[in-house]
Amino acid sequence: MTVYQNILTQSGFMDNTQLTYPFEERGLQFGDGIYEVIRIYKGSYYLLTEHVNRLFRSADALKITLPFTKEELYINLEQLIKQNNITKDAKVYLQVTRGSAARDHVFPDVEANFYAYAQDLPRPTENLRHGVAAITIPDIRWQNCYIKSLNLLPNVLAKQEAKEQGCFEAILHREETVTECSSSNVYLVKGDTIYTHPETNTILHGCVRSRIKTLLDNHSIAFRETAFNLEQLADADEVFLSSSTAEVMPIIMINNNSVKDGKPGKITQLLQKMYEQDSKIHDSIFS
Amino acid sequence: MTVYQNILTQSGFMDNTQLTYPFEERGLQFGDGIYEVIRIYKGSYYLLTEHVNRLFRSADALKITLPFTKEELYINLEQLIKQNNITKDAKVYLQVTRGSAARDHVFPDVEANFYAYAQDLPRPTENLRHGVAAITIPDIRWQNCYIKSLNLLPNVLAKQEAKEQGCFEAILHREETVTECSSSNVYLVKGDTIYTHPETNTILHGCVRSRIKTLLDNHSIAFRETAFNLEQLADADEVFLSSSTAEVMPIIMINNNSVKDGKPGKITQLLQKMYEQDSKIHDSIFS
Repeated sequence: MTVYQNILTQSGFMDNTQLTYPFEERGLQFGDGIYEVIRIYKGSYYLLTEHVNRLFRSADALKITLPFTKEELYINLEQLIKQNNITKDAKVYLQVTRGSAARDHVFPDVEANFYAYAQDLPRPTENLRHGVAAITIPDIRWQNCYIKSLNLLPNVLAKQEAKEQGCFEAILHREETVTECSSSNVYLVKGDTIYTHPETNTILHGCVRSRIKTLLDNHSIAFRETAFNLEQLADADEVFLSSSTAEVMPIIMINNNSVKDGKPGKITQLLQKMYEQDSKIHDSIFS
Repeated sequence: MTVYQNILTQSGFMDNTQLTYPFEERGLQFGDGIYEVIRIYKGSYYLLTEHVNRLFRSADALKITLPFTKEELYINLEQLIKQNNITKDAKVYLQVTRGSAARDHVFPDVEANFYAYAQDLPRPTENLRHGVAAITIPDIRWQNCYIKSLNLLPNVLAKQEAKEQGCFEAILHREETVTECSSSNVYLVKGDTIYTHPETNTILHGCVRSRIKTLLDNHSIAFRETAFNLEQLADADEVFLSSSTAEVMPIIMINNNSVKDGKPGKITQLLQKMYEQDSKIHDSIFS
């Protein structure tokens, strides 16, 4: 998808043909930065507060000084939509690095580099309706996966492995414990209970994950933040994943074995409906 | 230190004011790339073959197709020295990323991006003579530290922590086992034996480390590739580190405690002399 013309930076809006980075840049040489991917439905942000709060938590954890306040960022992100006249389903990718400086591991005394750009992104309707396949793969990442950092090499390798095996995602596990996927959180349904890994250092604290939890407050379906293992995964009634771009996505096949009858499960579909309602989506996948 | 004017890229030499990167680049958005830092003494490379071989091993591990053969790289790196008239002590930083492409975890079908630039780098004479201080810190990195990748965030954080505590390096440990430092290998001397972590996935296989091993072949000093723990580290006769920029560097203080009498040890100094001889350094730190 084409990047919308106006890109937001720490120095204001720039044309997408003008924005380049120097070769001595902390993102480029160390992956020393953080990012967010924010969903837009029909020109409006979904879960914007959650993403902005997480960006500030990631910055805190890495001692990166952001070049804006939360209030300034909200205003600028709304401007990004206006300046580009975005009315469709889209996403914003934004990243902040520690800045441009001569290469040295130690933090340099420079300003952070920031950019945010938008791209159209239709809903993955067919996958949402029919579900996707996944593989399981060892989680070889570092210990601080709760920080949404640019050190994404293990995630890249896991996703590529999934793709080469004809799958949508890779489900990661440390020893026997399932953590999350390469770019999404993962859930197991058994009976009327949904299980997912607790919000520790070893998983990303997903914005959609957190929203699902809230939506299920006081619901008859239990949301239990208890890790499950590979054996329990193979014996699940339903499995699904969530992310800002994949929404609530049924996983119907794992390592070439069907999850139950190989169709999206009822609780997964209930959550998909709740998601559509919460994000004010009108053209439902169920209609 | 200023970057020498002529930078080597996959498209030939470029002026250092001309080289910029697009904002959609695998290095910048995923840390999806590899690098090397190669030492130059008086205009000549030291351990060039070892660095080039390691670069190709890293590329293999990440399935990055390098835009040159080893032979082409040797020729181009020699050209880099000639074009810039480098006659002093210096270093070359080179990196290869998976290329420029719209952001997607999956490998794009594009050419790799490559650059190599040189900078003057005098020997750290005072530190080599008197030794440096270090802290110990948990090793929170991923499982494939043998790949010299651009995912350097945990290394950056460890080095910064060392600097904030007035130290030169951070010695990393997984549980109680010492692995290496944030940007160097680490060694313990006890009696006539040098201990260092074996070449597994959890450490970088240092070029200087490998050279030290070769230099000690058939020597009365034993080089044992056996990991040691924090307790043994605290009880060492000598401790030192090695890297292409730090050479063989005595560590005389760890967590504010002196290593033995707090002076560079005899075996460390013997290795420093062997290093100077091997790299054909004339102005010795001992003269």
